[in-house]
Amino acid sequence: MSKMKPRTLSGFMELLPARQVQFDRMVEILRQSYSLYGFTPLDTPLIEASEVLLAKGGGETEKQIYRFTKGDTDLSLRFDLTVPLAKYVALNYGQLTFPFRRFQIGKVYRGERAQRGRFREFYQADIDVIGDGSLDLSNEAEVPAIIYKTFTALGLNRFRICVNNRKLLTGFYAMLNLAEQSGAIMRTVDKLAKIGPEKVKALLVEDCGVPEQDAEEILRFTGIGGSPAQVIAALEAYRGRNEIFDLGLDELQMVVGYLGAFGVPESHFAVDLTIARGLDYYTGTVYETIMLDHPEIGSICSGGRYDNLAEYYTDKKLPGVGISIGLTRLFFVLEDQNYLNEDLITAPADVLILPMTEDLSPSISFATTLREAGIRTQLHGEQKKFKQKLSYASKLSIPYAVFLGEDEVKSGQVTVKDLDTGEQITQTPEEAVRRIQEGLARRRIGTPIREPGSDTQN
Amino acid sequence: MSKMKPRTLSGFMELLPARQVQFDRMVEILRQSYSLYGFTPLDTPLIEASEVLLAKGGGETEKQIYRFTKGDTDLSLRFDLTVPLAKYVALNYGQLTFPFRRFQIGKVYRGERAQRGRFREFYQADIDVIGDGSLDLSNEAEVPAIIYKTFTALGLNRFRICVNNRKLLTGFYAMLNLAEQSGAIMRTVDKLAKIGPEKVKALLVEDCGVPEQDAEEILRFTGIGGSPAQVIAALEAYRGRNEIFDLGLDELQMVVGYLGAFGVPESHFAVDLTIARGLDYYTGTVYETIMLDHPEIGSICSGGRYDNLAEYYTDKKLPGVGISIGLTRLFFVLEDQNYLNEDLITAPADVLILPMTEDLSPSISFATTLREAGIRTQLHGEQKKFKQKLSYASKLSIPYAVFLGEDEVKSGQVTVKDLDTGEQITQTPEEAVRRIQEGLARRRIGTPIREPGSDTQN
Repeated sequence: MSKMKPRTLSGFMELLPARQVQFDRMVEILRQSYSLYGFTPLDTPLIEASEVLLAKGGGETEKQIYRFTKGDTDLSLRFDLTVPLAKYVALNYGQLTFPFRRFQIGKVYRGERAQRGRFREFYQADIDVIGDGSLDLSNEAEVPAIIYKTFTALGLNRFRICVNNRKLLTGFYAMLNLAEQSGAIMRTVDKLAKIGPEKVKALLVEDCGVPEQDAEEILRFTGIGGSPAQVIAALEAYRGRNEIFDLGLDELQMVVGYLGAFGVPESHFAVDLTIARGLDYYTGTVYETIMLDHPEIGSICSGGRYDNLAEYYTDKKLPGVGISIGLTRLFFVLEDQNYLNEDLITAPADVLILPMTEDLSPSISFATTLREAGIRTQLHGEQKKFKQKLSYASKLSIPYAVFLGEDEVKSGQVTVKDLDTGEQITQTPEEAVRRIQEGLARRRIGTPIREPGSDTQN
Repeated sequence: MSKMKPRTLSGFMELLPARQVQFDRMVEILRQSYSLYGFTPLDTPLIEASEVLLAKGGGETEKQIYRFTKGDTDLSLRFDLTVPLAKYVALNYGQLTFPFRRFQIGKVYRGERAQRGRFREFYQADIDVIGDGSLDLSNEAEVPAIIYKTFTALGLNRFRICVNNRKLLTGFYAMLNLAEQSGAIMRTVDKLAKIGPEKVKALLVEDCGVPEQDAEEILRFTGIGGSPAQVIAALEAYRGRNEIFDLGLDELQMVVGYLGAFGVPESHFAVDLTIARGLDYYTGTVYETIMLDHPEIGSICSGGRYDNLAEYYTDKKLPGVGISIGLTRLFFVLEDQNYLNEDLITAPADVLILPMTEDLSPSISFATTLREAGIRTQLHGEQKKFKQKLSYASKLSIPYAVFLGEDEVKSGQVTVKDLDTGEQITQTPEEAVRRIQEGLARRRIGTPIREPGSDTQN
């Protein structure tokens, strides 16, 4: 029979088993972390009716969308988790209780040009809090804490959460009578880190039609730096000239003020007045998160406050605040940069049992005992030589091997070999279970991410 | 602005929050149960190149497949998890260690005619063991144990695992010189439960061209019942007439013989000679699982032994054994039949903190304390009346509310109300954490499924 060459589509991440375990461990920590903050899990279809999914228009992503017909129905794969959330909330409005806090970790699809580290199918890990009519600022203040706790739970420490407030920008550009150009200006200012202030200034003047004096003022403003307290002090100098600006400053002060109580150290936080996060959607606090040692990969967790989640579906005003982690891309970077902790168990089993008697019953019984103690156990029943079976365990990095021969069966004992240390002990099943459990507990200490050069033994 | 009416496609399950928690809890138990048996998690793309996915031909499902083009590429959504596994194993053959044991829980797509309880997007929860060249029979013997432990872990008890062996059928029909018609015969025999023996006999004679005497013999054979030991004794009468039959009988004996060591009670197991599970793919033990009180919904967990996982991709002989649970449909039935345990916590949080001071810091700090103790905590910072906030907690079935007013802040205490019993205690934060943890532990006892009329308090 002629064979079809197997392949996986370009831009689709498909991991080998050990890597998949590492990925899943990160997902599990995200689930736990989001759950600790009172977010409920949600799962929505990958496919939606195109007219529903694209009600708002796909914007820049429209041509990237996987859109097709099945029968007479025009369908699209979701390209983010926000539009399906808007649909869900509008559709189930009467059955939800607000504020509605949900997390969703799922795949989304964008037919981007394939390039290294860019994916067409990728996981997003989102949280959103949706209010009915109004939503208190305390929700915006809580977000940096969630970001901080989530990344430290993963084992990432060298990162910084950067916030800004869109009202500050809106108000500031209004002060300069540049409200109309503010979109173009923000897009230009966004290039600061890439092209530097001189070029930004030139673009502001030439492309955005900003008077030279105002361009300098904009650069002075967006260049305000220092500790959060210093930034706020500098911003106070602008107070009283625009109501929206003043409101934004009050909001920023409150967000910064609660950081301590939320357990976010100042070392991991900065106010960055250059952050805008798109044009129309966000209306209050906005967030970006950068890896200190890899600023070039951009923000690994972003989001912000918005006023209208579902305006394309409902007249209800549904303000919210949310953040999103691009998990597939983050995992790619972590792997690429050698940040994945290779010491944690990635084996499919904790114990491999090597039956050495014709009758497998004693081995099966002990496997059952181990599993009942929560120990992941594989029975190696293949007709292979002893050495091959041991090599199987070591190839898969299975921590323990158990040998059950006639001697063990007669004496009611088992022989357990720690494949890491080579230590081999014949002991009672109860002793074996305890020893294995203790060993596994030791090997489970640590986080999925381990930063290069970190001193800690995690 | 004109609004687009939000809707979810027909045939796509989208759950309300509390139901989603119940669904996710089942998924988590499946993951744990599969892991205990040494299966490693796998995740493959939802989309594959059509020529790869359909290399084997989609068979009956071909017209149900979601197939479309993006750019120049002919793409299809996966319709099961077996073909992607075959592709994965063929593609990564050199990097995998065999036997390769993987589980995968993921969505698959079939554009079936929409009807109640039928889904176009649904979860399958699969395990497979793949050998390289050969695979020991002990893997087939282990499968009933996995099915048994998995369903009892979910809380289902009134079910029966039915097995047959394809070699018995192949050998039996060869004895009757009916090898050529065996496909048509098996399809007809499969209707026994639905249309009864008389009609099956008529169909065998008229449609399959089976001599009347042989038709009676077939019905006698497939009608063999009783305990596994009784069935095997009856089958012994056929021994010596066909080699394949004899091999199948040996295999069945071994599978049955190890049930005890694997911890599968005889009450949950039967040999059922009518089970065939499709025509070409399976070659050894085959499995079906029925709910005793709902046989009408058919098998909830099926699979079997096959000889060639990936013959369309590779010359390597890759025999395997696997089972699949149609999780979305199972969940639908459980909900429909009132089998979901509604006593387990489905709230998004364990504790709702109601700040009663202007400054939120004390509430935020206590929320941080609770989260560090692993307690899922939501801060209710909205500008609402006290009564509304309490009603929010009760609507969401949040177990505990915490009040933090001036008195509490001064005395360094917190007031915790058990919203189930109404008991309200002002206590130190440490006492509160302990009390809440103990209460939560009590409420976590129990399984996601609770059979109607079951005495047990889970």
